[in-house]
Amino acid sequence: MLENLKELREEVYEANMMLKEHNLVIFTWGNVSGIDKNREYIVIKPSGVDYNKLTPGNMAVVNMQGEVIDGELKPSSDTATHIELYKAYGEIGGVCHTHSLYATSFAQAYWNSDNIEPYGTTHADYFDGVIPCARAMKKKEIETDYEKNTGLLIVETLQKSKRSPLEMPAVLVKSHGPFTFGRNAKESSEHAVILENVAHMAFNAKILSYKSMLGDFSISRELLRRHFDRKHGENAYYGQGENK
Amino acid sequence: MLENLKELREEVYEANMMLKEHNLVIFTWGNVSGIDKNREYIVIKPSGVDYNKLTPGNMAVVNMQGEVIDGELKPSSDTATHIELYKAYGEIGGVCHTHSLYATSFAQAYWNSDNIEPYGTTHADYFDGVIPCARAMKKKEIETDYEKNTGLLIVETLQKSKRSPLEMPAVLVKSHGPFTFGRNAKESSEHAVILENVAHMAFNAKILSYKSMLGDFSISRELLRRHFDRKHGENAYYGQGENK
Amino acid sequence: MLENLKELREEVYEANMMLKEHNLVIFTWGNVSGIDKNREYIVIKPSGVDYNKLTPGNMAVVNMQGEVIDGELKPSSDTATHIELYKAYGEIGGVCHTHSLYATSFAQAYWNSDNIEPYGTTHADYFDGVIPCARAMKKKEIETDYEKNTGLLIVETLQKSKRSPLEMPAVLVKSHGPFTFGRNAKESSEHAVILENVAHMAFNAKILSYKSMLGDFSISRELLRRHFDRKHGENAYYGQGENK
Amino acid sequence: MLENLKELREEVYEANMMLKEHNLVIFTWGNVSGIDKNREYIVIKPSGVDYNKLTPGNMAVVNMQGEVIDGELKPSSDTATHIELYKAYGEIGGVCHTHSLYATSFAQAYWNSDNIEPYGTTHADYFDGVIPCARAMKKKEIETDYEKNTGLLIVETLQKSKRSPLEMPAVLVKSHGPFTFGRNAKESSEHAVILENVAHMAFNAKILSYKSMLGDFSISRELLRRHFDRKHGENAYYGQGENK
Repeated sequence: MLENLKELREEVYEANMMLKEHNLVIFTWGNVSGIDKNREYIVIKPSGVDYNKLTPGNMAVVNMQGEVIDGELKPSSDTATHIELYKAYGEIGGVCHTHSLYATSFAQAYWNSDNIEPYGTTHADYFDGVIPCARAMKKKEIETDYEKNTGLLIVETLQKSKRSPLEMPAVLVKSHGPFTFGRNAKESSEHAVILENVAHMAFNAKILSYKSMLGDFSISRELLRRHFDRKHGENAYYGQGENK
Repeated sequence: MLENLKELREEVYEANMMLKEHNLVIFTWGNVSGIDKNREYIVIKPSGVDYNKLTPGNMAVVNMQGEVIDGELKPSSDTATHIELYKAYGEIGGVCHTHSLYATSFAQAYWNSDNIEPYGTTHADYFDGVIPCARAMKKKEIETDYEKNTGLLIVETLQKSKRSPLEMPAVLVKSHGPFTFGRNAKESSEHAVILENVAHMAFNAKILSYKSMLGDFSISRELLRRHFDRKHGENAYYGQGENK
Repeated sequence: MLENLKELREEVYEANMMLKEHNLVIFTWGNVSGIDKNREYIVIKPSGVDYNKLTPGNMAVVNMQGEVIDGELKPSSDTATHIELYKAYGEIGGVCHTHSLYATSFAQAYWNSDNIEPYGTTHADYFDGVIPCARAMKKKEIETDYEKNTGLLIVETLQKSKRSPLEMPAVLVKSHGPFTFGRNAKESSEHAVILENVAHMAFNAKILSYKSMLGDFSISRELLRRHFDRKHGENAYYGQGENK
Repeated sequence: MLENLKELREEVYEANMMLKEHNLVIFTWGNVSGIDKNREYIVIKPSGVDYNKLTPGNMAVVNMQGEVIDGELKPSSDTATHIELYKAYGEIGGVCHTHSLYATSFAQAYWNSDNIEPYGTTHADYFDGVIPCARAMKKKEIETDYEKNTGLLIVETLQKSKRSPLEMPAVLVKSHGPFTFGRNAKESSEHAVILENVAHMAFNAKILSYKSMLGDFSISRELLRRHFDRKHGENAYYGQGENK
C-alpha cells in the first residue's frame, strides 16, 4: 500500500522544491504536504532538513494521528497543523506553510494592517475577498498542543470569513506567517508564491497611499523634452541610428 | 499565407520570454502579441500556459474578430483588449500586458497616486509626460465585454492625455496593471521592462519625499574619518596594501 | 600543529562563501572567523580580498594576540573585534560580520529604531528577545584601538540585554552593522543570513504600521468577482480548460 | 599608437560588464570610460548597444575634442560629460554613469532628500562626507551643449562640497542619476556598485526614522518562548535532533 505513495512522494517533493525555486524559503524553512486519495496518509517535508538535501525518498509519511508510518526522518514540526486542515476540509489535497517575506510582514504588522485587502485584479484572480489574518493565539493555546491549535485557529478564521479553503486558499497566522491550500500539494505551493506577489503589491500600494505624501515634484518640461527627443526626436542622437 | 507568420511567431515568442527573463511574470501571467504587416492576423500567447512550455509553434493566431485561425491552444483571455488597441492605432505592431510588481502597485494605489509622474530623465527617455492611469471601470463595462471594454478604456485614456501610443507607450489600467505598446512585439516588451524600472524609481522617490521625514541623523565626523582613513588615509590598514 | 587547522580553514572558507551565496556581501566586504578547539588559533578571512579569490588555503591564521602565525595575507581589519568576543565567551566557536542591507539599515536608523523588536515567530525561532543595538561609540573609543573597543562594546551590549551570545546570537553595532555568533563558523554565518531576513520582515512590518496610513481602497465587488470567476467560476474562460 | 589602447579597451569593457553583473543596468543603459596614460584618448561604451553585444573590440575611442578616432560605432551620447571630468581632474582615470535604482531615486526625490547623508560606516568607507546632488540645470544649460554642461555642473558641485573626486567619488545629477569616478575605469564602476548599496541603506534608514512610526507591537513572551524553545530548549522538537 505504501508503494502507492511513490507518486505522492514525488509530487510533495516537487511542491517543496517550488518554494526554493521562487525564493520563498532559506535553509530548512517552510513545509508542504499532500494527502493520498483515501485520506489516510500524509506525505510531508521532514523537519529541519535543508532543501538541497531533500529527495522524494526522504519525505516523511504520517497517518491521520500524526504517527510516522514510513521513512526514517521526523516529519515537520508543523505536521499537527496540516492534519487539522485535512480533517476539516475534504476538498483540499495539499497544504503549504512558509515564512515568505511580504506575506509574513503582513502577519507581523500592527492590528490595522493584519490582513490583505483586495487592491487589484491579481488578488482577485485567486482570492475571493480579504485574505484574513487569525486572531492572536491565547496563552493556553500556545502552551499546550500549539501546532494543533494553530490548525484549529485557521479553520476558525476561514469560517469567520465565510469562505471555503478553495475560495480563500490563504490564511495568515498572526505574528507567524501564511498557510496556503490547494486541491493538491503543487497548487498549495503555487498559492504560496502568488500570495507573496500579492502581498508585495499590497504593501507597495499601501505605502503609495500614505496621507503625508508631498505634492508634485515632476521635472521641468525642458528636461523632459531634451531626453525624449535625444532618443526619439527628429534629431535624435542616442544609439547607432536604428531608431530614426 | 499562414506560413508567412513563422517569423512573427518567433518574434512574439521571444517577446514573451523577455518578460520571464526580466522577472516581470511568474507561472502563466502576462501576455504579448504582434500583428502582421497587413494587419489581418495577431499572434499572441496562449491562455494559461506556463512560460517554460511556450514555443514559437504553440503561440495562438487570431484574426481581427478574435477567431482562432491557427494552432490548437486558446489565445490569451485578454485578446479582445489587444485587438481594440490594434484597431485604434495603425502605428503599433506589438502590445504587452503584465502584472509587474511596481507598475501594478501604482495602478492599485489610492486615487492621488494612480499615475506615474515624470520624476527623472529615465522616465523622460521613453515616456512623453505623465504615464496615465485609466478611470475605474463601470459596473456595466465589467459585466459585459470586459476585455474589449478594457481596450476601449485604454484608448480613451491615451486620448485624454493627448498622446499617441508611441509618444506614451504605457497606460495603467486602474486596479489591474499596465499595458505597453511598441512598433513591434519586442519593443512593447522592452517598454514593459522599462516601465517597471521607472515605476520602482518613482515609488522610491515618492517615499523619500514624505513630509514626515526626520531631520539629520548623520554619523559623527570622528567615525566617518576613522572609516575613510582606515581604507584611504596615509596609515590605511584595510586590505593587502594595494590601495596605498 | 598548524596541520590540524586544515579542517578549520575549510569550514571558515565555506562559512565566508555562504555570505556571498546569500547576497549578504559584495566585493571584499564582510568576514567570518572560527576558533580551534583549544582556543589558541583563529582562522579568519584575509583583509580586502575578493570572495572570488578566497580559498581554504589563503585564510589568515592569528593567535589570541592577533599575531599572524600562518599564511601570507593580512587578516581582516576587524580581527581585534573577533578576538574580544572569543575571549569573553567560551561557548562561541564562530563570529561573522557583514554590512547586509536590512540589518545595517536598522543599525543606521534614528535612535528610536536602533534595535530589532520581536514582531514574529521567525525572529523568535532564533533570537531570545529584542536584538540589541550598541550605544554610539565615544570619540576616544573611535580614535584608539577602535576594533578592540568595538568588541568590548558588543560584550557590554549583550550584558545589558542579559543574554548569552547563543541566546542572542546577533548584536548591531550602531551606525555600522551586525555581528553574529554561533557554536562554529558555519552557524555564525547562518545567523547572519537569518538576521537579514528577520530585519527585512521587521522593516516591512514597521512600515505597514505607520499611523498615517489611509483607510480602505479595496476594489469593487464586481471587479473582484469578474476576475475570480474568469479563472474559477462555472463559465471560467482563462486557461486551456484544465481548471474546470 | 592605437594598438596601445588594446589593454584599455579590455579594461573599459570589463568595467562596463561589471554594471551588468551587479544589476545596475538593463538593455543599453549606463556607460563607463577610461582614459589613456597620456590623457589623449578616451575609450567609452558605444551608444545604445546592448551589454550582451559589447566586446573589447567594439568600444568607441575618442580624443579630447570628442572626435571618434577608432572604431565604427558612435560613442555614448554622454561622452561630452566624461570629457569635462577628465579635463578638470588629472587624478581620475575612469568615469561611470548609471541610472541605478536607489542612487537615481535619491537624485529624483524632493529637494530635502536630494543628497545622501552619511548614516553609517559603509558610506564612510568610501565617501568623505555627504554625497552631493547638483542643483537643477537651467533652461539654457539644457537646451545647448546639454551633456557638456552636465560635466561642468558636476565639477561645480564637487567644488561646492570642497572635495576632490577621489575623496568624493560620486555626484548625483539632479533628476537624472549618478556619475562616479576612480583612478581607473574598474574603480569607477566599483564605486557605482557601492554607491547603489549605500543609497539603498540610506533609503531604508530614512524610512525607518519617519516620525509617524507606531510604538511597540512586539509578540507576547509566551509565543516567543514557545518558538525559541521548540528549536533550542531542553525539549526541542524541531529538526532531526542534531541541535540538542
